[in-house]
Amino acid sequence: MPIPISDPDDPRIEAYRAVRERDLVGREHRFVAEGEVVLRVLLKQARFTVESILLSENRVSGLLDALDVLPSGTPVYSASRAVMDAIVGFPIHRGVLAVARRAPLPPVAELLAGMPEQTLVVGLVGLANHDNVGGIFRNAAAFGANAVLLDPETCDPLYRKAIRVSVGGALVVPFTRVASAAAMVTDLRATGFEVISLTPSGREPLTQVRRPARVALLLGAEGPGLPATLLEETRTVSIPMSGGFDSLNVATTSGIVLHHLSSIPHGYSVEQPHAR
Amino acid sequence: MPIPISDPDDPRIEAYRAVRERDLVGREHRFVAEGEVVLRVLLKQARFTVESILLSENRVSGLLDALDVLPSGTPVYSASRAVMDAIVGFPIHRGVLAVARRAPLPPVAELLAGMPEQTLVVGLVGLANHDNVGGIFRNAAAFGANAVLLDPETCDPLYRKAIRVSVGGALVVPFTRVASAAAMVTDLRATGFEVISLTPSGREPLTQVRRPARVALLLGAEGPGLPATLLEETRTVSIPMSGGFDSLNVATTSGIVLHHLSSIPHGYSVEQPHAR
Repeated sequence: MPIPISDPDDPRIEAYRAVRERDLVGREHRFVAEGEVVLRVLLKQARFTVESILLSENRVSGLLDALDVLPSGTPVYSASRAVMDAIVGFPIHRGVLAVARRAPLPPVAELLAGMPEQTLVVGLVGLANHDNVGGIFRNAAAFGANAVLLDPETCDPLYRKAIRVSVGGALVVPFTRVASAAAMVTDLRATGFEVISLTPSGREPLTQVRRPARVALLLGAEGPGLPATLLEETRTVSIPMSGGFDSLNVATTSGIVLHHLSSIPHGYSVEQPHAR
Repeated sequence: MPIPISDPDDPRIEAYRAVRERDLVGREHRFVAEGEVVLRVLLKQARFTVESILLSENRVSGLLDALDVLPSGTPVYSASRAVMDAIVGFPIHRGVLAVARRAPLPPVAELLAGMPEQTLVVGLVGLANHDNVGGIFRNAAAFGANAVLLDPETCDPLYRKAIRVSVGGALVVPFTRVASAAAMVTDLRATGFEVISLTPSGREPLTQVRRPARVALLLGAEGPGLPATLLEETRTVSIPMSGGFDSLNVATTSGIVLHHLSSIPHGYSVEQPHAR
């Protein structure tokens, strides 16, 4: 049964104090998961160790089934809504928080080397918006992407809001950091990946793309898009749009492309109709 | 040239006062557009009359080209950032606001009757989230949907945030209200539309769907989805997902389906493989 907390200053729930302020400075070795759906996803992931859980009293009974998997030493705290709000520093309507340890990020070459023959990877370049990164992880999980690679400018998928927007997808799809977008492309090619860059000026429309066995999809931020050097070096693909309104959200774009790549027949690589 | 405003209590900029509070109570005959991209879209739409514009001083020179199309009687106000923040009641980083008159909503039968032979319509049922409705309008504009129909529970596409998320798509795609979801289906069929309901339990995967000449795509809220009665009466389509994580955002779903329907060959209707 949960350990009741009645004093917002109780040192045992230190990790939950002033959640938003700590979001901003970052938590080096930990992250915070919020909400029942995300907690249930977290509890199924072997690669993350849950350090503790804090629940609003009225959420405890509905979560007992999920908490069964916790090792016996993992504390589960409960508090009234008022005490919980005072701890976290704002009204926490979902009433469900967990603190977990980050998994070490594997070197990209190691991550890619362990992938199966049929592999779909997403590479993010300069994506600084947590909603977009969360949305992309949600789609990556939904369409079974094997990994997500993040360039140095892309924001943290384990930021609380990014996890929430991903509906837990950020906890499901393996990811790691790369030294640069150019190094990512080099590593992908060295392990047999066809690299596709999404851009409005792409030479092929998406519907014409057959899925290579190992394919990596590169996405850049709305506005600047992918760097010109990447576009010159990779196979570029566009999503044709209606005249006069060629504007898609990058998370939506990821959903459209991942749906296409995961639903067309694959298991073969075709000759590409362009020179590289 | 813009009319300078130095007093936040100036009665001429009454329409911009306490923008967020007025968002909540609603503006019966007006709406507020925010940001440069949205303003530029608004100024191109003949069906909306701009009543006035309020710009932060530092945004004026960059917008003079777009303001050329305004009738000479339409006031454009400018204010310092501090005065503009005081007027609207929060820091308005974009520094660009406009108040415009809503266009009358046409009866649904009239709107549908005026549609071309090749028509793609989106029908929204119970979508109460402004981000999702804005995202759907963005996709509807990007893929050239001809109209969006809103059931009584779906929120206002001309809510400030919905317009912003739509990147102006809510000002581009014609829309109207229907009396009920059931009445919408009846009206669509009476004007020759094939009605497709998106649902995880859909009988056909999306990739198998050929585009009918007149097609309407129904979307419900994440969680509850579309009402069972609608699913029984319409052609149901699903987006197959990876095992264990079948969760897509409804705006992303709209992008995937609209991309599919707008990019496959059309101009013919095929026999449906299921009984209705």
